[in-house]
Amino acid sequence: MTKPGEIGTIMLDEAKETLLIIDQTLLPGEKKILRLQTKEEIYTAITKLQVRGAPAIGITAAMGLFLAIKDSQATNFAQFYAEIMSAKEYLIKARPTAVNLCWALNRMEEIVPANKEKNIDKIKKLLLAEVEKMIAEDTEVCRKIGEHGLTLLHDNDGILTHCNAGALATTAYGTALAPIYLAAEKGWQLKVYADETRPLLQGARLTAYELKEANIDITLLCDNMAASVMAKGRIQAVITGCDRVAANGDTANKIGTLQVAILARYYHIPFYIAAPTSSIDPLCPGGKNIIIEERAAAEVSHYWYAKPMAPAGVKIFNPAFDVTPAHLITAFITENGIIYPPYNF
Amino acid sequence: MTKPGEIGTIMLDEAKETLLIIDQTLLPGEKKILRLQTKEEIYTAITKLQVRGAPAIGITAAMGLFLAIKDSQATNFAQFYAEIMSAKEYLIKARPTAVNLCWALNRMEEIVPANKEKNIDKIKKLLLAEVEKMIAEDTEVCRKIGEHGLTLLHDNDGILTHCNAGALATTAYGTALAPIYLAAEKGWQLKVYADETRPLLQGARLTAYELKEANIDITLLCDNMAASVMAKGRIQAVITGCDRVAANGDTANKIGTLQVAILARYYHIPFYIAAPTSSIDPLCPGGKNIIIEERAAAEVSHYWYAKPMAPAGVKIFNPAFDVTPAHLITAFITENGIIYPPYNF
Repeated sequence: MTKPGEIGTIMLDEAKETLLIIDQTLLPGEKKILRLQTKEEIYTAITKLQVRGAPAIGITAAMGLFLAIKDSQATNFAQFYAEIMSAKEYLIKARPTAVNLCWALNRMEEIVPANKEKNIDKIKKLLLAEVEKMIAEDTEVCRKIGEHGLTLLHDNDGILTHCNAGALATTAYGTALAPIYLAAEKGWQLKVYADETRPLLQGARLTAYELKEANIDITLLCDNMAASVMAKGRIQAVITGCDRVAANGDTANKIGTLQVAILARYYHIPFYIAAPTSSIDPLCPGGKNIIIEERAAAEVSHYWYAKPMAPAGVKIFNPAFDVTPAHLITAFITENGIIYPPYNF
Repeated sequence: MTKPGEIGTIMLDEAKETLLIIDQTLLPGEKKILRLQTKEEIYTAITKLQVRGAPAIGITAAMGLFLAIKDSQATNFAQFYAEIMSAKEYLIKARPTAVNLCWALNRMEEIVPANKEKNIDKIKKLLLAEVEKMIAEDTEVCRKIGEHGLTLLHDNDGILTHCNAGALATTAYGTALAPIYLAAEKGWQLKVYADETRPLLQGARLTAYELKEANIDITLLCDNMAASVMAKGRIQAVITGCDRVAANGDTANKIGTLQVAILARYYHIPFYIAAPTSSIDPLCPGGKNIIIEERAAAEVSHYWYAKPMAPAGVKIFNPAFDVTPAHLITAFITENGIIYPPYNF
């Protein structure tokens, strides 16, 4: 049995030159640790979803920036800063929707001009220290999200979640799953329901995996079964993570979140987004300004299957995310507390 | 390219001793014709979903009843009728939710006492004639559903459907897809969207297959993407088939239909159920009286996959159907016309 925090999604090795992540594409069948040592390996791990989840992507990209310049031979600040900006430009393209990637890279970049009077080796050390700080902060932020989220729940509640916003998406606890882990620590008996989350099955492969490892009562369902469990009165709250919150509260998260929010509204069930404040993008006015990544058709028709599951050449719609309008969101659960409408970030 | 009616889901061979069906579990990769010659083969084909779709199940079960008694050695009516009842009792258990199975078996049974003065060979001939009549009627009923349904649609409309209620679920045209085939015959350019329909992927494997074969504009999406296409304004109507309509209009259909209906209501999109009147069960007062079949967990975690897609032993919720409350149904499209609320069957 794994306790939250022990799942070890993201950590640095002792030499602090390698990022260790669980290859999430192989779960639940195989728990393989990837050792990432270059910005190219980092980029590939993000695009292939070997690491995913907004907070985890942010930290991974930050480490990618450090790895890109750790052996830099730059002899002056301008040259070094240009290398930083080039690596940032490269890494930021790995996934367009999650704001944490951009947030983490900005945070790394800002260190550089702020310390321009220092020598380059010192700046490199500061960048690595920033990655370590992000890792430590993330665990603390997730725990705080858990504590605040717990105030919205009750013993024996049924909780529906979508995709994976758990320990596997962060350094520990997760965001949406943090209140659930803390409830378990208190001895509460929550009943958790996980949408399988097509096409990449993060609910089936990751959420069901980590909650079962933690000995939490978890039931897996297909995405089209959510209304049925709600209609039976089994769900008292929906909690999901998110990839980007716009200034008006519109929220991008894994495809399918929008419809879970509509169903929750129909059944008068509160719908919560658990998010670190780093997922809030005050520069993005509303949902229509959020770029939605469209992914390959084969993820739907071929990816997991022993044989193709759709006729050859059929058109396929495969957006990775959708936007839930603010009016469907009961509250945001952040590390700083619960935020209720009207939203104005 | 296949025209509707040529897809040949269900037909009798020339000797009228064998029912020919496409094994729907092998589509879209392989089009294999099964030759069913005993009631046991019929029962297995229904439970394994080699044949599925309410109208198709009804006809298949009716043929099963004929096959059960065609070589009967009964020497008196009582003995023969007892054999009929025993076969009916056996076949009716193949699937509990679709009323057409029960309706078709009742229709077959009623022939027997109504012709008790005739000799047993003559009754056998009448039973076979009834199966042939059902097959012919089904095509006609589906075409009428298509004609009535077409009055609710417009050229260039986007239509969302769930599961497969097409030619593969009937003898021709289908129910929900009948208006779409007739629109294509008129030269209309509908844009059809098919939910993949987890766990058994009837939308991906069957609806996408038969509409693509018919050269109709079809886009496949995962079940959790329906709200996204609705939010983009691409859907002007939702049409699904059904397995049982209760007297008050509550309707059982493939799992996921309920939530599509809720989403359609949220986006002010009409939600239609296309159904032959044989799917209406006036003896069933409401949705809570409809038995919902629960199926094996492995359908969700293992069935199609190259490797298991959920952790071993995790609890899985896998109902085959759900019930859409009458108030979410804009109208029923039947062979006798469009039926609007209030429903009182």
